[in-house]
Amino acid sequence: LLLPGDQAMKYLDDFTVGDTFDFTTVPASAEQIIAFAKQYDPQQFHLDEEFARTGPHGGLIASGFQTLLIVFGPIMRDLMNDVANIAGIGFDKLRWLRPYRPDQVLHVRITITAVTHSRSKPDRGILAYTLEARDSDDNLVMTVDVPVMVQRRQDAVA
Amino acid sequence: LLLPGDQAMKYLDDFTVGDTFDFTTVPASAEQIIAFAKQYDPQQFHLDEEFARTGPHGGLIASGFQTLLIVFGPIMRDLMNDVANIAGIGFDKLRWLRPYRPDQVLHVRITITAVTHSRSKPDRGILAYTLEARDSDDNLVMTVDVPVMVQRRQDAVA
Repeated sequence: LLLPGDQAMKYLDDFTVGDTFDFTTVPASAEQIIAFAKQYDPQQFHLDEEFARTGPHGGLIASGFQTLLIVFGPIMRDLMNDVANIAGIGFDKLRWLRPYRPDQVLHVRITITAVTHSRSKPDRGILAYTLEARDSDDNLVMTVDVPVMVQRRQDAVA
Repeated sequence: LLLPGDQAMKYLDDFTVGDTFDFTTVPASAEQIIAFAKQYDPQQFHLDEEFARTGPHGGLIASGFQTLLIVFGPIMRDLMNDVANIAGIGFDKLRWLRPYRPDQVLHVRITITAVTHSRSKPDRGILAYTLEARDSDDNLVMTVDVPVMVQRRQDAVA
């Protein structure tokens, strides 16, 4: 874990519009999909393989909430943990375009879309990125636009 | 669990713009916040109470992903499980306005904002709602707009 002030820490000033970062997700098994659904989203097509087979999706599919966690897992672990992140702001236009099915590995690309300095608080600003998660056939599974509040480098502010 | 065709199942035709539904969330403890962060979002202000106390939020706060699950928990368990839901579509304008702190109970209100029949598939349509989650002091903690694809009643379609 990096602490603020660490040289390897990324600040708002270290990002440029157009920068891309690529990630590979950790797969979730049928058992993990069912366990998550029991805890957070107990709809039958997330819980019951037999029922799901006859339903509109033709098989067991993950809760959209779990798909979100699968997609963001490597971003949070491998990128945001080294960013001088103050807080998540939200999500815009999140879309689940295809269901997540057991054992899929997704490829996630994020592209920086804006780097905006705060007018009222010069030590920070908003990093915005767009995200595309694709399956192994290159089909889009999920897309979302993400604004995050990030610290500026002290030497960039001063 | 209700099966499609069950009389208690809610279809798209059973919702009207302006309908509201109220929910109370299940609180998450500091231990649950830390455990969730270890698994899904290992940023230090979600993991380490000492560190968090000196940080910008003045104490341990939940990952935004966990706040999302806390807010939607009772909606998925108590409402959507009885709705003839085909699939989540996504989220629009999700905003985390205040952090979720240990043991808070949130009050969640959803208001139906649109009931739209599909032109291409007459058996379904889009149910849209807006959500407001508030703390016990009535401060907004999270807001989001949610479109969901829901089946129509067969007798309403025919």
